[in-house]
Amino acid sequence: MTVMEKIVHVRDSKWFSNLTTIIIIAYASILGFKTLDEVDTHYDLFLKLADYFVTIYFVFELAIKMIAEKKFLNFFKSGWNLFDFVIVFITLLPLESSNYAAIARLMRVFRILRLFTARPELKAIIDMLIKAIPAIIDIVILMFIIFYIYAIIGNFFFVNLESGLWKDFLVSMLTLFRVLTFEDWTDVMYEAMEVYPWAWTYFVSFIIIAAFVFFNLFVAVIIGEMQKLQEAEMKEEIHEDSLKLDILLKEMKALREEVNNLRKEKQ
Amino acid sequence: MTVMEKIVHVRDSKWFSNLTTIIIIAYASILGFKTLDEVDTHYDLFLKLADYFVTIYFVFELAIKMIAEKKFLNFFKSGWNLFDFVIVFITLLPLESSNYAAIARLMRVFRILRLFTARPELKAIIDMLIKAIPAIIDIVILMFIIFYIYAIIGNFFFVNLESGLWKDFLVSMLTLFRVLTFEDWTDVMYEAMEVYPWAWTYFVSFIIIAAFVFFNLFVAVIIGEMQKLQEAEMKEEIHEDSLKLDILLKEMKALREEVNNLRKEKQ
Amino acid sequence: MTVMEKIVHVRDSKWFSNLTTIIIIAYASILGFKTLDEVDTHYDLFLKLADYFVTIYFVFELAIKMIAEKKFLNFFKSGWNLFDFVIVFITLLPLESSNYAAIARLMRVFRILRLFTARPELKAIIDMLIKAIPAIIDIVILMFIIFYIYAIIGNFFFVNLESGLWKDFLVSMLTLFRVLTFEDWTDVMYEAMEVYPWAWTYFVSFIIIAAFVFFNLFVAVIIGEMQKLQEAEMKEEIHEDSLKLDILLKEMKALREEVNNLRKEKQ
Amino acid sequence: MTVMEKIVHVRDSKWFSNLTTIIIIAYASILGFKTLDEVDTHYDLFLKLADYFVTIYFVFELAIKMIAEKKFLNFFKSGWNLFDFVIVFITLLPLESSNYAAIARLMRVFRILRLFTARPELKAIIDMLIKAIPAIIDIVILMFIIFYIYAIIGNFFFVNLESGLWKDFLVSMLTLFRVLTFEDWTDVMYEAMEVYPWAWTYFVSFIIIAAFVFFNLFVAVIIGEMQKLQEAEMKEEIHEDSLKLDILLKEMKALREEVNNLRKEKQ
Repeated sequence: MTVMEKIVHVRDSKWFSNLTTIIIIAYASILGFKTLDEVDTHYDLFLKLADYFVTIYFVFELAIKMIAEKKFLNFFKSGWNLFDFVIVFITLLPLESSNYAAIARLMRVFRILRLFTARPELKAIIDMLIKAIPAIIDIVILMFIIFYIYAIIGNFFFVNLESGLWKDFLVSMLTLFRVLTFEDWTDVMYEAMEVYPWAWTYFVSFIIIAAFVFFNLFVAVIIGEMQKLQEAEMKEEIHEDSLKLDILLKEMKALREEVNNLRKEKQ
Repeated sequence: MTVMEKIVHVRDSKWFSNLTTIIIIAYASILGFKTLDEVDTHYDLFLKLADYFVTIYFVFELAIKMIAEKKFLNFFKSGWNLFDFVIVFITLLPLESSNYAAIARLMRVFRILRLFTARPELKAIIDMLIKAIPAIIDIVILMFIIFYIYAIIGNFFFVNLESGLWKDFLVSMLTLFRVLTFEDWTDVMYEAMEVYPWAWTYFVSFIIIAAFVFFNLFVAVIIGEMQKLQEAEMKEEIHEDSLKLDILLKEMKALREEVNNLRKEKQ
Repeated sequence: MTVMEKIVHVRDSKWFSNLTTIIIIAYASILGFKTLDEVDTHYDLFLKLADYFVTIYFVFELAIKMIAEKKFLNFFKSGWNLFDFVIVFITLLPLESSNYAAIARLMRVFRILRLFTARPELKAIIDMLIKAIPAIIDIVILMFIIFYIYAIIGNFFFVNLESGLWKDFLVSMLTLFRVLTFEDWTDVMYEAMEVYPWAWTYFVSFIIIAAFVFFNLFVAVIIGEMQKLQEAEMKEEIHEDSLKLDILLKEMKALREEVNNLRKEKQ
Repeated sequence: MTVMEKIVHVRDSKWFSNLTTIIIIAYASILGFKTLDEVDTHYDLFLKLADYFVTIYFVFELAIKMIAEKKFLNFFKSGWNLFDFVIVFITLLPLESSNYAAIARLMRVFRILRLFTARPELKAIIDMLIKAIPAIIDIVILMFIIFYIYAIIGNFFFVNLESGLWKDFLVSMLTLFRVLTFEDWTDVMYEAMEVYPWAWTYFVSFIIIAAFVFFNLFVAVIIGEMQKLQEAEMKEEIHEDSLKLDILLKEMKALREEVNNLRKEKQ
């Protein structure tokens, strides 16, 4: 194995991806817990060291990924690699003590996003979600229609309720979103029922239509896409079976032809 | 491509459906936000312009759909087209300043329903839901049975509770619906347990039966129908495989016949 | 068609089952709403008439089902029929004015259960649920284990909390059931965290283990069984394909045998 | 059937597994309810007897499992058996009156874990969950990323809110977990909206991303793994079909070869 092959091997190995995952999560946790305790000097030093270590590791990891590419410029052809490069590059800028310190600190938080590039499985899930958008968009539009009509009606009837939950269109939308999550929706309903005793029909119908029926369609699409990712194997096999059957049919035809010829030649 | 073909092409194109979608949603949002800010004169003018624009676009879109039809009357054979026509027709009536102004304003809200006809995917989902009704109706009847028995029992035992959540059959049904969504159901239970310490059996059994078992059957039907829509391809393939196998079996039989004949002829 | 065939035809027809469904639901609704308004004499008369009508219809329907059977005693071989017979028989007893009036009134409520026998689809769902019990029982046992261990631990640590939500084993179980439904679980947690600041680990771990993982297994079994009912067709087809392939393989073998024989005979 | 065969037969029989299940659950229930009533002397004696009985039964059951093994040491090769042995062994230690009485009492609680080894189905579910970890771990990491970013942002903006729900990183994480379960999340939001009127975008986006999209991915994996367990049969059949088709294709090739040879030989 040449050095080049070794580097490619390391880049594609499971342990390298797992190591990067652990380092990023550990670093993110340290960053998070910084706000937990009061920042004393010892902890600050530890944090600085961790920061240096992670920065060096990131550069090292990026270098491996760049070198493993056959052509250097191929590296930048992938959107994920570009995303990676930008995050690492920004953390290398000496912004700590400058006016952009706040941005630099924020950037450190977004380092956790590098988990996406460190784990091919996460990339697969994100890619799957992006591919699912056309299927989801229609359910979202359906939900929007339902929300819109109910928000207009709710805003029209309940606008003067004391709680102010229906005071304008946007707030009505938010209140309906709350009802969709079943969050204290009876409080909202009982308040409305004091003025309009039949207001329960509004809420019950919204829950049945929006939460029971259409929200489950949304869940079905998400679950369906996820299962597609998992059931790809079975589908593949069914598809292959179909292709094999096509070959069989063709072969069968050819065979009959030949047997026919055999017969003719004899006569 | 003739003009006619071009019009059919436009009608069936993705971008035309997406453009209509965006215009309807934008217009609906403007209408919704009208109630957000106080209606000042500038905004009012903008709204009127948007209104004119959408009305013209709708007539234009309807015209395309009508012209694209080979026979003009075919257009009215589809229920969706009829639905479309009525909504556009009503918005064209000069009701703004008449006594029917309120209805006219309401009609503008229902323009959002044109999204169904603008996007064939939404029509597919609605058609699917309509097709799923026979499967859903039985689960709904099952839920009704459970609600009914629990409402009668709850109404019988808890009728005198101070909260009035069980004061009559209908209110008991509503309270059970609330319990089904887990909405502050312990408040209802703890109140009942003060009088009947074993009331928890009533609530826990209802949640297990209605929410855990039968509600999930309902979800299963919805998810199942949605997945049918998505898995149609795989099912198709399995079905095709079956047909191919039938052909293969027939071919095989014919082949054996021929080989047999070959043998007989020789003897 | 003889009279007998006509009766069998009626019994198995969709409209007969739908008619019975509508009558039962209408009657049950009337019974339910009786408690809604104050019982005045007019409504009482109406209720009595409805009662008579339903009783007569039930006897009539039962008669059809009995006559449609080839042998009269076959009717009683089905558990569902027996269940049907008992409910109708009891409602025929003249208990109205006797000491058993309360039981008679209760019996009227349970007439709604006749929906199960009126609709074969409901019977199918119930039969499916009964068949699913072996698959569900293990998930239930798993849930019991988790509840048990958490209830013992919760009861041990939180027994002295003021709310009394952990005062004994059974109440702890109930509190955990409440946490499982996410019903105001943070109230329970925040109270515990005042005494034990790390109590959140107890609640978060319970929710992740019981609600996220094992409850979803339960849902998966229910959804899986329901889908089996719906996907039976596809499965059937896959199974048939397998059988067809077996025949094809056998045929193929026989064919090769014959071709071989053809060859030998020639030599 | 020899004695050995009988013992193996008993060990693998359904009723033996069910009997052990019932005994363990009954014993666990008795232990649990001990805390329900005040401990009087009669109940105490009953508990002691149950304790003796269960200990003896456990030893007896373990003996059967050990004897049924062909080689005695094979018994300890299974992790589940080892787990079984340790629990039974510890309960045999005479710790009741010693200093370790508390541990002994705790150990009795963990006897319920023996249900795992008593029921092969439970073992299958646990094994399935362990096998599902690689698929779940990536969703968990995704959830961690979302929680992390939202916790940092929430902690940054809402740190000074009176409720203290965002006072540090860990508490922010806990608050987000609460929002994920929809538990009184509007209380949290309305408090934040008093200071930042646009805070609803933070909460609504978190619910849509974390609860609607990614949590459903998690559910999809769990449901998918469970269904795999149930659909193994169908998958098997599809796979077998594929193999049968491969054989058919090979056979077909061979057949054509032979027919070709037949032709050549003739010429």
